[in-house]
Amino acid sequence: MHAMAHATSGGKRLRGFLVMEGAALHDVPAERAIWPATAIEALHAYSLVHDDLPCMDDDAMRRGQPTVHVKWDEATAVLAGDALQALAFELATHPDCGPPAVRAELALTLAQASGARGMVMGQALDIAAETAATPLTLEQITALQAGKTGALIEWAASAGARLAGEDPGQLREYAAALGLAFQIADDILDVEGDANKAGKRLQKDEQAGKATFVSLLGLEGARARADELVVAACEALECYGPRADPLRAAARFAISRES
Amino acid sequence: MHAMAHATSGGKRLRGFLVMEGAALHDVPAERAIWPATAIEALHAYSLVHDDLPCMDDDAMRRGQPTVHVKWDEATAVLAGDALQALAFELATHPDCGPPAVRAELALTLAQASGARGMVMGQALDIAAETAATPLTLEQITALQAGKTGALIEWAASAGARLAGEDPGQLREYAAALGLAFQIADDILDVEGDANKAGKRLQKDEQAGKATFVSLLGLEGARARADELVVAACEALECYGPRADPLRAAARFAISRES
Repeated sequence: MHAMAHATSGGKRLRGFLVMEGAALHDVPAERAIWPATAIEALHAYSLVHDDLPCMDDDAMRRGQPTVHVKWDEATAVLAGDALQALAFELATHPDCGPPAVRAELALTLAQASGARGMVMGQALDIAAETAATPLTLEQITALQAGKTGALIEWAASAGARLAGEDPGQLREYAAALGLAFQIADDILDVEGDANKAGKRLQKDEQAGKATFVSLLGLEGARARADELVVAACEALECYGPRADPLRAAARFAISRES
Repeated sequence: MHAMAHATSGGKRLRGFLVMEGAALHDVPAERAIWPATAIEALHAYSLVHDDLPCMDDDAMRRGQPTVHVKWDEATAVLAGDALQALAFELATHPDCGPPAVRAELALTLAQASGARGMVMGQALDIAAETAATPLTLEQITALQAGKTGALIEWAASAGARLAGEDPGQLREYAAALGLAFQIADDILDVEGDANKAGKRLQKDEQAGKATFVSLLGLEGARARADELVVAACEALECYGPRADPLRAAARFAISRES
């Protein structure tokens, strides 16, 4: 668990970690996997820089540092995010990723997962939820999460299989459960966490009167649901045997982290 | 000229037009070329939506319509731009573009042209120029333009050759001259144009005290330079013979447009 905590530094580099571990399971060398791993981290970083903007979540702290628009200015934050998104596609199609079919597939699936039917849609639903007349239902929050964080976590967990030209079937099932557990843990952290350890502002959802997994399921109910999902995530990896233990540890870590 | 004006509607769909015409020159069917053509239009549209934001150029009108943040709000404009960038990479890697090697190459070169060493860098330099203590030199403005508009025009003109798996050598030379002529024409339009016909606010650069090709070369000097560049652009297409006439017309149109 210590190695896992070190590898991902809280939830911060979870996506890149999933790419590297998924690749190892499919015997893809790290020299190839590092390209999609850095691609997904660049894409995730762009989403954070834009989400923190005053017109979005308006956050001043991230990862224990001033956010980009606070440290520099809003124009720089918009442009830095834009450039990071382009960088993600540059990395995902780097010649060292593998054969052209793999590179084209990585870029196409990354675009689908991050665009108007994936992450951006999730973020738009999240913003809409803040001004909604009635709080979202559990079903609606689950759909929102599937876009906002789920699509990229699924892409990250599937990338290793894609690098090997194989079907990411079981890894996708693992990722779907992990992604949802991760978001429930985020909601718990927002209520219970220590802002210093988390490196960002907390209690935001409650202040905004937003429905969350915690407000809908209660704290104990949310914890129980996250636990169930981690069990399901680990079971999805059965076919890989003990080689998948780092991914199992990542799933357990996702719900025990403090940041 | 009427057909050209219709095809591009002012400068608005120039980039997609360049892809389609470049593809025709290389005997690539329109059913394949339409994917990178729509990709570059999506990418260009994202850049306009973000450039119009209050923290960037702060424009209320574009193409004769209210800009996205005026019609909706800033968060929607940030997200719409983000989704359009992802859409550009989804379109550029669409399976119907051609073989995987072509799709991977289109996405990689599009990422390079639009990112921190291409369009985004040009936009950052442009913003920096507004608060610069001394106005930019001709050399600096040319470098800024090469990033801001040149890189994507070059990508568009080269895409047809790339679709055919051929070297875009002459098309790149054409595009470099065209891109610079286009930007000089933009600066002339900013001084002389009719805001109604242009569908956007004009006289912005003068108000901001920014150096432009017009302020550095004078109106007549800028016109003469644009004319020279159009001649150079047309000459670069010599090897293609009369089949390249639509691209020659596009170059002439770029400096005679009113929007």
